[in-house]
Amino acid sequence: MARIVMKFGGTSVANLERIRNVAARVKKEVEAGNEVAVIVSAMAGDTNRLVALCEEASPLYDLREYDVVVSSGEQVTIGLLSIVLQSMGVPARSWLGWQIPVNTSDAHGSARIQSIDTSDMIRRFGEGQVAVVAGFQGVDSMGRITTLGRGGSDTSAVGLAAALKADRCDIYTDVDGVYTTDPRIVAKARKLDKITYEEMLEMASQGAKVLQTRSVELAMKEGVRLQVLSSFEERPGTLVVDEGEIVEQEIVSGIAYSRDEAKITLREVPDRPGIAASIFGPLTDAMINVDMIVQNVSATGEATDLTFTVTKADFNRAVEVLKGEEQTIGYKELRADKDVVKVSVIGVGMRSHAGVAQRMFKALADKGINIQVISTSEIKVSVLIAEEYTELALRSLHTAYGLDAA
Amino acid sequence: MARIVMKFGGTSVANLERIRNVAARVKKEVEAGNEVAVIVSAMAGDTNRLVALCEEASPLYDLREYDVVVSSGEQVTIGLLSIVLQSMGVPARSWLGWQIPVNTSDAHGSARIQSIDTSDMIRRFGEGQVAVVAGFQGVDSMGRITTLGRGGSDTSAVGLAAALKADRCDIYTDVDGVYTTDPRIVAKARKLDKITYEEMLEMASQGAKVLQTRSVELAMKEGVRLQVLSSFEERPGTLVVDEGEIVEQEIVSGIAYSRDEAKITLREVPDRPGIAASIFGPLTDAMINVDMIVQNVSATGEATDLTFTVTKADFNRAVEVLKGEEQTIGYKELRADKDVVKVSVIGVGMRSHAGVAQRMFKALADKGINIQVISTSEIKVSVLIAEEYTELALRSLHTAYGLDAA
Repeated sequence: MARIVMKFGGTSVANLERIRNVAARVKKEVEAGNEVAVIVSAMAGDTNRLVALCEEASPLYDLREYDVVVSSGEQVTIGLLSIVLQSMGVPARSWLGWQIPVNTSDAHGSARIQSIDTSDMIRRFGEGQVAVVAGFQGVDSMGRITTLGRGGSDTSAVGLAAALKADRCDIYTDVDGVYTTDPRIVAKARKLDKITYEEMLEMASQGAKVLQTRSVELAMKEGVRLQVLSSFEERPGTLVVDEGEIVEQEIVSGIAYSRDEAKITLREVPDRPGIAASIFGPLTDAMINVDMIVQNVSATGEATDLTFTVTKADFNRAVEVLKGEEQTIGYKELRADKDVVKVSVIGVGMRSHAGVAQRMFKALADKGINIQVISTSEIKVSVLIAEEYTELALRSLHTAYGLDAA
Repeated sequence: MARIVMKFGGTSVANLERIRNVAARVKKEVEAGNEVAVIVSAMAGDTNRLVALCEEASPLYDLREYDVVVSSGEQVTIGLLSIVLQSMGVPARSWLGWQIPVNTSDAHGSARIQSIDTSDMIRRFGEGQVAVVAGFQGVDSMGRITTLGRGGSDTSAVGLAAALKADRCDIYTDVDGVYTTDPRIVAKARKLDKITYEEMLEMASQGAKVLQTRSVELAMKEGVRLQVLSSFEERPGTLVVDEGEIVEQEIVSGIAYSRDEAKITLREVPDRPGIAASIFGPLTDAMINVDMIVQNVSATGEATDLTFTVTKADFNRAVEVLKGEEQTIGYKELRADKDVVKVSVIGVGMRSHAGVAQRMFKALADKGINIQVISTSEIKVSVLIAEEYTELALRSLHTAYGLDAA
C-alpha cells in the first residue's frame, strides 16, 4: 500500500469523457490498495474564459476578486470528478482550498502555500475515501480565496504530497514525460526516464512548459518523488529524482527554449559607478524582472553598452520606464528587439565537464547563427539568438550533445 | 440613510454590460447615502449549464457534490460585480456563503437558512463598503457548501435582509413588478402597486414565477418589506406588504396558472377506511408531493374514483410507484393526463366576500370550459382544466373579476 497524489491538468479534464478516463485511472490506484488524493485543474479553456471576464470587468481588477472568479473553475471539476468516481463505486469527496484548508500568503493571484492541514483527509483515507482536491487555490489568513498563479495546480499537488508524506506525486499531462527537447520541433527528441530536480528546475524556468517552476522547487526542497506521465496512455513517464539516483549521468540532459524574451540595449551609457543601479532600480520598482544582462565597453572607451532581456509581457512597460529615466541614466540610444529566442542547454554533468559551453558556441557558429547574449549557471548555458534560427539551433545542439534518438 | 438589500437575478447579470448596469443601480443607492448589500444570481444560463454537467456525470449524482458544482456560478458574478463597482469608485467586496457565513441545514440541493452572521458586514458598511453576496448558497455544520434550491437567491436576499434588519429588500428582475396575471397572455393585465404577503405567497406557489415561494414565506414571517422591480427600467415596482397597508382591497388581486401539473385518476378504488393512506403513503415515501385531490363516489357505490395531481417532473415516478402498489390498493384502472393546467384566482378579499368561486365557475362554464378538479383555500380557488383552454380561461377570468386595465 502506498499513499499517492495524482494531478490532472486542464486538457485531462476537458470534458466528461476525459473526466471518466481520469476516474478510471484513479480507480485502478485505489484497487491496487493505495490511498489516493487527486488534484485537478479547471476544464481546459475555463480559466482563460474566467480571466477574460475579469479583464473585461476592469483592466485594473482587484486581485482578491480575480481569485474569487478564477478559482471557480476547479470547483466545478472536483464536484464532477467526485460524482463520476462515486458512480464507479469509488467513495470520494471533493475538497476546496478553504475546506482542507490550504493556508497561503495573501499575495492574491500568486500566493504561496504556507501550510496544509491533512488530518481530516488522512482519517478519511482510513475509511477508503478518495480525496478530490481543487488545485490552484488556497485561503489567506483573512479567510479569502487565493490562487497560486498560472500552472499553480502542479504546486498544489507537490505541496499536498509533501504534507501527506506521500510516496509519489504523479503529474498526468498531455505529453508522456519530459523530453530532451521539444519533440514538435526536433523529431529525434527522446523521452527521459529520469531527470534530476536541478535539471527539471532549469528546464521549467528556461521555457519547458511541462511543470510549473515553483512546483519543482518545492518538490526538491521537500524531497517529493515526482513523476510526469500521460493521462491518455498507460506507460511509465519521467521520474524527477535526486542526483544520486541517476547512475549514468549525461553531460547535457535537455535543451530548452523560450520565445518569451525581448531584448533591450542602452547605447553609450556613461561608464560610472552606480549606473547599473540607476537602470535596474526603476525596473525593479515597476515589478519588471530582468533576465539576461551583458555589458560591453563601447568604442569610445568612456561609455558602455548595456543589453538585457525582459519578458514580452513586460516589454512595453520596461521601455516606458527607461524612457522616463533617460535624463537620469544618460544613455544615447535605446534599441529594442522582440524577435529573439533564448536557447538553454542544461545538465548537472556540466559541473564536472569542461568545454560544454564551447561545444554550444561552435555548433551555433557552424550554422552561421550569431549569439547576442550569453548567460550561464552551474548547470546551464543560455544564449539569445534571432528567433528565426530557433528550429535550426535546437536541432543542431541536440545532435552536437549526442541527444538524438537512435 | 437606509440599509437596503438589492437582489439581481440571472438575466440582470447575463453579461458584463448588464453587470455594469447593476453596478450603476447600486452606485445610485450608495450615493443616496444608503448602506447596501447586493445579492446576485449566476449569469443567465450558467446554472443550467452546471446542472447539465452534473447530470451528464451521473444521473444519480451526490447532492453534496452537485452543490459544489452549481454554487460556482454565483462565485463568478460576485467577483465580477465587485471589480466593476470598484472601477466605478464604489468600495465593494464579495462574500461567499461560507465566508459570511450563511449557516444552513444539511439538506443539500434545497437547504434552509438557519442563521446569518452579519457582524463583519455591518462593520464594513460603517467603512462605506458595499457587500456583494453570492445568492443561492450557504454552508452546513460540516463546512460543506449547500444550495437553497432553484430560485434560492430570492430567499438569500430576504434572509439577509432579515438578518441585517434592512429597511427594504428590492428584488430586481426582468419584469417591472407583479401583475394581475401573465401579461404575455393577457394584454390587459395590470401591474399591481401593492400586494399582500399572503396573496404573493399564493401567486408564487400557484405558478407565478416572479418570486421563489420560500422567499415570500420568509419575508412574511420576518416582516421584510419586499419590492419587485425592473433591472432595466427606473420606475416603482410592486410592494409586498402587510394586509393593513392596503386600503382599498380588491376581492381578487391576481390570477396565476401552472402548466407544471399532471393528473392521475385511480378508477374504482374500494371505498374502505385507510384507502387514502394506502395510496398517498407510498407516494410520500418516494418524496412525491401531491397537490390537488378529489374523491368521487363511483357509479357502483361500492368503489370510489380518486383523482389527484403531481408535478410533471414527478409524474413518471408516481405512475411507477402506483403500479407497484396495484394489488395493495386494489384499483381497477389508472388513468393519466399531462395536458392539464391549474388556474387559480387569489385575493385576501375572498375572506369577506361570498360568491367568488361561483363567479369563476360561471365564467369558465360560459366559455364551455370543463372543470376537472377544484381545490380552495381561504384566499384562493384553483381549478384544473384542459391545457388548451389556458389563454381563454385566463382572459375570461381577468375580465370577470374586473381586473382588466382601463
